[in-house]
Amino acid sequence: MTIQRPRGTRDFLPMDSFRRNAVRRRMQEILEQWGYSEVSTPTFEHLELFTIKSGPSIIDEIYAFQDKGGRDLALRPELTASVMRMYVGELQKAAKPLRLHYFGNCFRYERPQRGRFREFWQLGAELVGSDRPDAEAEAIALAQELIKSAGVSGDLHLGYLGLIRAMMRTIPASERPTLMRFIDKKERTLLAEKLQEIGRDHLGLLELIDLKGRRALDRAAEMAEDLAKMSDALLDDGVAAGDSDTASAAGDRAARSDRAAPADLDLAHFAELVDLLATYGVEATVDFEIVRGLEYYTGTVFEIYATGLGAQNQICGGGTYSLAALLGGQETRSTGFGIGFDRIMEIVTLEERPPAPVAVVFVPQVRAEAIRAARALRSSVPQPIVLDVMGRGLGAQLKQASAIGASFAVIVGPKEVEEGRLTLREMSTGSQESLRLGEVAERLARRKEGGVP
Amino acid sequence: MTIQRPRGTRDFLPMDSFRRNAVRRRMQEILEQWGYSEVSTPTFEHLELFTIKSGPSIIDEIYAFQDKGGRDLALRPELTASVMRMYVGELQKAAKPLRLHYFGNCFRYERPQRGRFREFWQLGAELVGSDRPDAEAEAIALAQELIKSAGVSGDLHLGYLGLIRAMMRTIPASERPTLMRFIDKKERTLLAEKLQEIGRDHLGLLELIDLKGRRALDRAAEMAEDLAKMSDALLDDGVAAGDSDTASAAGDRAARSDRAAPADLDLAHFAELVDLLATYGVEATVDFEIVRGLEYYTGTVFEIYATGLGAQNQICGGGTYSLAALLGGQETRSTGFGIGFDRIMEIVTLEERPPAPVAVVFVPQVRAEAIRAARALRSSVPQPIVLDVMGRGLGAQLKQASAIGASFAVIVGPKEVEEGRLTLREMSTGSQESLRLGEVAERLARRKEGGVP
Repeated sequence: MTIQRPRGTRDFLPMDSFRRNAVRRRMQEILEQWGYSEVSTPTFEHLELFTIKSGPSIIDEIYAFQDKGGRDLALRPELTASVMRMYVGELQKAAKPLRLHYFGNCFRYERPQRGRFREFWQLGAELVGSDRPDAEAEAIALAQELIKSAGVSGDLHLGYLGLIRAMMRTIPASERPTLMRFIDKKERTLLAEKLQEIGRDHLGLLELIDLKGRRALDRAAEMAEDLAKMSDALLDDGVAAGDSDTASAAGDRAARSDRAAPADLDLAHFAELVDLLATYGVEATVDFEIVRGLEYYTGTVFEIYATGLGAQNQICGGGTYSLAALLGGQETRSTGFGIGFDRIMEIVTLEERPPAPVAVVFVPQVRAEAIRAARALRSSVPQPIVLDVMGRGLGAQLKQASAIGASFAVIVGPKEVEEGRLTLREMSTGSQESLRLGEVAERLARRKEGGVP
Repeated sequence: MTIQRPRGTRDFLPMDSFRRNAVRRRMQEILEQWGYSEVSTPTFEHLELFTIKSGPSIIDEIYAFQDKGGRDLALRPELTASVMRMYVGELQKAAKPLRLHYFGNCFRYERPQRGRFREFWQLGAELVGSDRPDAEAEAIALAQELIKSAGVSGDLHLGYLGLIRAMMRTIPASERPTLMRFIDKKERTLLAEKLQEIGRDHLGLLELIDLKGRRALDRAAEMAEDLAKMSDALLDDGVAAGDSDTASAAGDRAARSDRAAPADLDLAHFAELVDLLATYGVEATVDFEIVRGLEYYTGTVFEIYATGLGAQNQICGGGTYSLAALLGGQETRSTGFGIGFDRIMEIVTLEERPPAPVAVVFVPQVRAEAIRAARALRSSVPQPIVLDVMGRGLGAQLKQASAIGASFAVIVGPKEVEEGRLTLREMSTGSQESLRLGEVAERLARRKEGGVP
């Protein structure tokens, strides 16, 4: 009987792992350089951590289960909620801002397709304690730097939820989650139909999400002024008596989230961010259609897209959020992002190869000497040193050395042992030299190079 | 509402993560040096992968759940079965031996206690394609090298299942799993009672598991000779008609495993391994009580214990096993081990500290210049470079630099900008120098050092 791996999951073979590690390491070095320390959290959490605040769309896709003690647990679908749960429990007293990063697997139950897996990896950062434009610019510039380090060029789109949330307040709270989802999924037709159905004049919303690029900021500022002039009486907070009967749980959540993050109609903050990004050398397209799926974002949101990935081309998403208070901590504004590591790996341009191994080959009667030579070489050269464990003869060992792409073979025979020397054979040319162990080590240390085909 | 992390799981804060990463990296460098490439497999697998062959004791402790498609899945309790599942599916045609390593989290539902967590990490290696003494010696020497690299000294106990399995064949198959479990858990009283109950004379078994150290091999060889003389008629293969009614599923499994791995009474192989380990400079205590909990081991088994850990002092376990055929592949003998990474971390002696950060501090009107200085420094010095994102004044920024343990502050003010210079302040002494950007970078690159308290 052959057992398959579960649908939508992957095995990473040696070359996959090497490539993933190389990109991961490069990114984590940059994160450390920017002062973001790594943290990690459990693979599963109490289910409620994700249902409190992640919105209904994520619940359908969650791997939830009960443990033998009857606890409702879930494999984490994302990492920001976990990191903030950890922050509330263990790091609230640390000096702000806190710069944290993570690299972890997440789980999502959905139909597997290109670039979407049921177990996938996110690399991300959280700048805890600030939602100033400075913090947002740093986080966004860092995300772009990480993506660039993988040889991928990302197209950054920058949105601002303050304005769209303010507009939403003219719409019954129960309808908002659906509208936000249509906007997030770019379902323009469904959105227009729904607005029609609600039966008020919401053309402003359609105009807003169409605003892109240079002119967007000016026009958005005008729209913000108009909104600010509206009397509070016209706005529906979703908690008015007349509405509470019809408001769904999702509507309640949306209403709560508006209260937690009051719509900020001052676009100066957002304009300052755009300027700061220019200082960081980061190009951004202002795009009010970016709303992100998760409800914990409060103001600035952004997404980064890459070419070469087809429809699933979003490789990074993030923004400013308020989550600590909802998890029982003190209100702490934070900015963060997550990079879809698997999608990055699909388009990464990477030249690095693992170093070619060196085979120590020997005739059986001097096996002990071969083991000692291998031990000595492992402590002094960077290449992998491999030794026969199959009881093969010298010829078969040399053949195997070729098969695994060895750059050199170090030959140990009775003659060599007697003379206190080893034979170093360059596999590509077949040329051989008789050398002392120390000379072999020197030669190999100089010749470190990639080469596994 | 505060949400706790699930019972028996842990968060790893920045300093925990740094220490774990440092030890992990050191171990993985050694694994690469010995030619063991990293692989990784999904966090969950089909439940049957673990129930087929891991024996009843592990099933009780498994995190099993159904996904939304009704599939029986399980969070992996160990990694060897997963790696061999991957081998059968994807690597059978590769040149043997295959040297693979992994670092991954595993899950076990049991009462949390010191050194035992519900999510825990294993670092391990599999040498696929050989069960020769050469392979076993390499794997064991590698395990000891990894443990040593963490500054931990391990006490290696080496057992051999061939003999004990041969003895077991004089006992009804249905009783064997219980006996093996009592031996594994060192439940000597329960074991003696059970043997009494079975009602045959099995004092040899008690004598065998008491054999330790230098004399053990000779006495074991004598016992093996006696066993070899026994007629096959006396042995119970657990498949005879008279026994099949009473044989439980566990008994069937044990019987199958005896057939898959016929008891080998030739102790020369084991003696050769002991000699080879000496060549590797590895001290071993021969100990026939080592049987390992998992039923897929076939011959040599070993465990490594560390002092300083109390009752839960086993930090490594492994041996030679046969698993590929049971997973639908071709019979492939392999040798491997897993190291309990969390236990290693409890007793690791590690001096490394993360590099102290450097703070770029600035007065607000030259923020753009400070950002540019930070960008330039990040590309040229190894220390983390951090920048204020809280809108703090210069004094508060310097105070914050102290709070986070910065070794230096790079001060950017209007005067500095005008002169094209920066002020480099050594935080410990307060001494300041006016330097060009390139000079600051040079100074910092030279002064890389640990220092976060």
